[in-house]
Amino acid sequence: VWKGAPKIEGEGGWSFKPRGRLQIDAGTFSAPAATGVADGFGSEIRRARLGAEGDIPGGFGYKFELDFAGGEVEIADAIATYADGGLTISAGHHNTFQGLEELTSSRFISTMERAAFTDAFGFERRLGLSAQYAADAWLVQAGVFSDNADDLSNRNWSVDGRVVAMPELGNARLHLGGSVHYADYEEGTALRYRQRPFVHFTDVRFVDTGWFDAASELGMGLEAAAIAGPFHAAAEGFWQNVDRPGALPDPTFFGGYAEVGMFLTPGDSRGYKRGVFDRVKPANPVGEGGFGAVQVNLRYDRLDLVDAGIVGGTQDGYAVSLVWTPTAYTRFMANYGRMAYRNAVIPAGGDGSYGVDAFAVRAQIDF
Amino acid sequence: VWKGAPKIEGEGGWSFKPRGRLQIDAGTFSAPAATGVADGFGSEIRRARLGAEGDIPGGFGYKFELDFAGGEVEIADAIATYADGGLTISAGHHNTFQGLEELTSSRFISTMERAAFTDAFGFERRLGLSAQYAADAWLVQAGVFSDNADDLSNRNWSVDGRVVAMPELGNARLHLGGSVHYADYEEGTALRYRQRPFVHFTDVRFVDTGWFDAASELGMGLEAAAIAGPFHAAAEGFWQNVDRPGALPDPTFFGGYAEVGMFLTPGDSRGYKRGVFDRVKPANPVGEGGFGAVQVNLRYDRLDLVDAGIVGGTQDGYAVSLVWTPTAYTRFMANYGRMAYRNAVIPAGGDGSYGVDAFAVRAQIDF
Amino acid sequence: VWKGAPKIEGEGGWSFKPRGRLQIDAGTFSAPAATGVADGFGSEIRRARLGAEGDIPGGFGYKFELDFAGGEVEIADAIATYADGGLTISAGHHNTFQGLEELTSSRFISTMERAAFTDAFGFERRLGLSAQYAADAWLVQAGVFSDNADDLSNRNWSVDGRVVAMPELGNARLHLGGSVHYADYEEGTALRYRQRPFVHFTDVRFVDTGWFDAASELGMGLEAAAIAGPFHAAAEGFWQNVDRPGALPDPTFFGGYAEVGMFLTPGDSRGYKRGVFDRVKPANPVGEGGFGAVQVNLRYDRLDLVDAGIVGGTQDGYAVSLVWTPTAYTRFMANYGRMAYRNAVIPAGGDGSYGVDAFAVRAQIDF
Repeated sequence: VWKGAPKIEGEGGWSFKPRGRLQIDAGTFSAPAATGVADGFGSEIRRARLGAEGDIPGGFGYKFELDFAGGEVEIADAIATYADGGLTISAGHHNTFQGLEELTSSRFISTMERAAFTDAFGFERRLGLSAQYAADAWLVQAGVFSDNADDLSNRNWSVDGRVVAMPELGNARLHLGGSVHYADYEEGTALRYRQRPFVHFTDVRFVDTGWFDAASELGMGLEAAAIAGPFHAAAEGFWQNVDRPGALPDPTFFGGYAEVGMFLTPGDSRGYKRGVFDRVKPANPVGEGGFGAVQVNLRYDRLDLVDAGIVGGTQDGYAVSLVWTPTAYTRFMANYGRMAYRNAVIPAGGDGSYGVDAFAVRAQIDF
Repeated sequence: VWKGAPKIEGEGGWSFKPRGRLQIDAGTFSAPAATGVADGFGSEIRRARLGAEGDIPGGFGYKFELDFAGGEVEIADAIATYADGGLTISAGHHNTFQGLEELTSSRFISTMERAAFTDAFGFERRLGLSAQYAADAWLVQAGVFSDNADDLSNRNWSVDGRVVAMPELGNARLHLGGSVHYADYEEGTALRYRQRPFVHFTDVRFVDTGWFDAASELGMGLEAAAIAGPFHAAAEGFWQNVDRPGALPDPTFFGGYAEVGMFLTPGDSRGYKRGVFDRVKPANPVGEGGFGAVQVNLRYDRLDLVDAGIVGGTQDGYAVSLVWTPTAYTRFMANYGRMAYRNAVIPAGGDGSYGVDAFAVRAQIDF
Repeated sequence: VWKGAPKIEGEGGWSFKPRGRLQIDAGTFSAPAATGVADGFGSEIRRARLGAEGDIPGGFGYKFELDFAGGEVEIADAIATYADGGLTISAGHHNTFQGLEELTSSRFISTMERAAFTDAFGFERRLGLSAQYAADAWLVQAGVFSDNADDLSNRNWSVDGRVVAMPELGNARLHLGGSVHYADYEEGTALRYRQRPFVHFTDVRFVDTGWFDAASELGMGLEAAAIAGPFHAAAEGFWQNVDRPGALPDPTFFGGYAEVGMFLTPGDSRGYKRGVFDRVKPANPVGEGGFGAVQVNLRYDRLDLVDAGIVGGTQDGYAVSLVWTPTAYTRFMANYGRMAYRNAVIPAGGDGSYGVDAFAVRAQIDF
């Protein structure tokens, strides 16, 4: 079987498949001169992953992937699994069921970067033990986690869960879900919520809470999506409440987005699988006489980091993306985004309200 | 051929096999409150390895494996080899023939961590050139080495050798061996011998010589083991003598362990191959109607870092491990250890004699 | 198909092949005692690479390789490609068409290290977009680049191009080429050109311009080579001009080499492919009754880092290498080099003119 790379299969249920992805980005962003920010051209290898996944007879398996972007190593998924019917148990480094956008692979999202809140609220893979039960039309996920492999060892822990209903209505797919996240932090922990202006190659953040002490974190998310032929729509909201130690008031920050998209090429549709968006397989790929799939997406993306005396600023993003998928394992994107700030932490001559424009392109292959 | 991952074979003697392992750990340890140590829960990805091995026609071959645990890269084996009959010549990064426990893969040892002396005395892979001759019942290994890839370039060098007799007596396997290690260090080198309390996720060391100047190091080890059906026993002792520059007295530190183990599941036995313990292949694995192999092990482990005016403390460890091997390439372990200290370098209210308890579990897959 | 590792092929034009190389080095160098340099023995893993390459139906492909030598990660080639006939378009991290020696794989060069100017002038892979057109007897390459993945994100950019004529004359291969490089650096950039004494395991540089401010860089190279049966010859010259900001004079530094080589074993010849030297495939490899290929090479290598008031020294290298290639994917080398310095930046008792000797050996496998 070929899935970008060969999935080699052995007797008794063995399998082995190499995994990898390359995302090559370039772009530019433009901020008001009064901010003093070094804006302009930027480029980077956004993701450079290599790894493997496999099945072991008896219901066991593994997925292990490393990211080398930026010339540093980061462990992505690193899990040992056991599956029986709809049940999957995973031990190791994996995502904590944060929601539709975060759990959808970066290879299949609508814009080059995910919604602002997913980075801002510190969504990341953590070391933990989880269980998932997937039926045809619904899905339950829950786990206990410690922390990201880069931050261990500590005594932080979290519990995370998510429920999704994903009925098929005629030819349409509906997706409705909710997630909850509770993290307990060891004494002396400080958090910082912040986000880049739509493009990742810069390290500038116009919204940023700064470091503040945190005892625990309670997050709740709602998600909805629909796919109908060439069309899709998706929306999420996430409320992150932080319990600060002592008598300090506890802020609740918010992030969310709403997007619509459609394919311009006949016969194409957005992939979906078990609670997340999946690979687009063009009806008429390049190499078989076709041009691949062309898709345009519109998105509104909000992040509000102002509450309880913490003024990290708000970001309202308006974005459009054009995605060309020549074949199922190649993808090219162009993105334009306009970020509107209020209470930005980098003032433009004393004013925290202004706009930033960003444009970027990506070339992607995966296997 | 399938060995966790496919071993792909080509005409003329070519082969290629991916290699990898994941070890996911969690646990807790408890020290007297008077030590002031931050004990308690901990978790980590203990090993996250990816690599490949292969054969090249003409007797050549290679083994190349990287460890990404903790989000950093460490080169494990990285060797080019030439084999002719029982003779194997290896050039590159590999173990320096330190003894049975160190040379046995971390996938196949009896407890989650190796005997205390193996870390304490700085056993590690080094860049070098070595030869091994293996017959049915005996084995000779010797090499010259410079240093670990992380520490190069310098002018340190060592010679290392090991001899093993491994006769089969009826249905039993006997193992008797000895090793010697001599390292010459460039001027200005300092060494430090220390060890964690049985679990690796903490960086606390209750025994620690502190840094001291060293001109050279002479180590000698003795090893014995036996496997008979479900039973096995193993013991090692290692004496590490350090030549300190000038008139300073030269300490000799000691470490060693003795263990016994047995399988509770019928038909199972500990694997053994060419001078080291090897993979357990359950007689009745999960997925073929069985429950896999269940093994319990008892171990006494001593480390003595007190000599010649250096008071690094002594650690006497008493450990029990329960190992479940559902299939040949999956493994789950639970460990409990009680460490008894004397002259500990972290005093408990002025007293260097106290005990520390540790408990940990591991999930493991490899290919 | 087997090319060191299996090239697995799927229907429709799919392929996947693991990639890797190990280069294990040891040697020694000797400088005048009056320099105070810590010379002597050294060893290192020079390259330890792992990666993959593949074809995707529709003309797409990728090449992704990581280098872990020294226990750090460096991204080597990381490109997504599109090919149609002689045309290849590459997006990602790749070489900037610097010339014959730099573009020839480190697995196939004549000495253990490339000509001094290739490191000195900062040749490296950069993130960019390039096109290549290759016909039977000529080749054109051009691209726009930002910077090495380790140095991003910044606003540096460069354009690079190269033209090669490579006619076959009877049984001989001729190679004539020229390259041009222009880099624009963002304000505040400083450059430093320097080089090690023929061996890589030391960090000593006897020639070194020190850091100096640079606004842009203009390089031009000429290259010529010929292969005729067992013989080959090659020569390159490269002129690097730096535009310094303000009224500072602009230096032009020079580097170049000339080499001749021959195989002592009958039937062997140096490999060549699309503008670079390629793999040697011994006529009578080890494992098929032969001894492999034995080659000796002589090289003169000059680097002149003195101009416009910058006195970085000159290095004239005289080197001989002996290369044994037992099989197409295994290689062993011994090198001796004599470096003659003038205006060396590490004076030997006040004198910048002296000689340094270096000797080194390498074991190599690749797949």
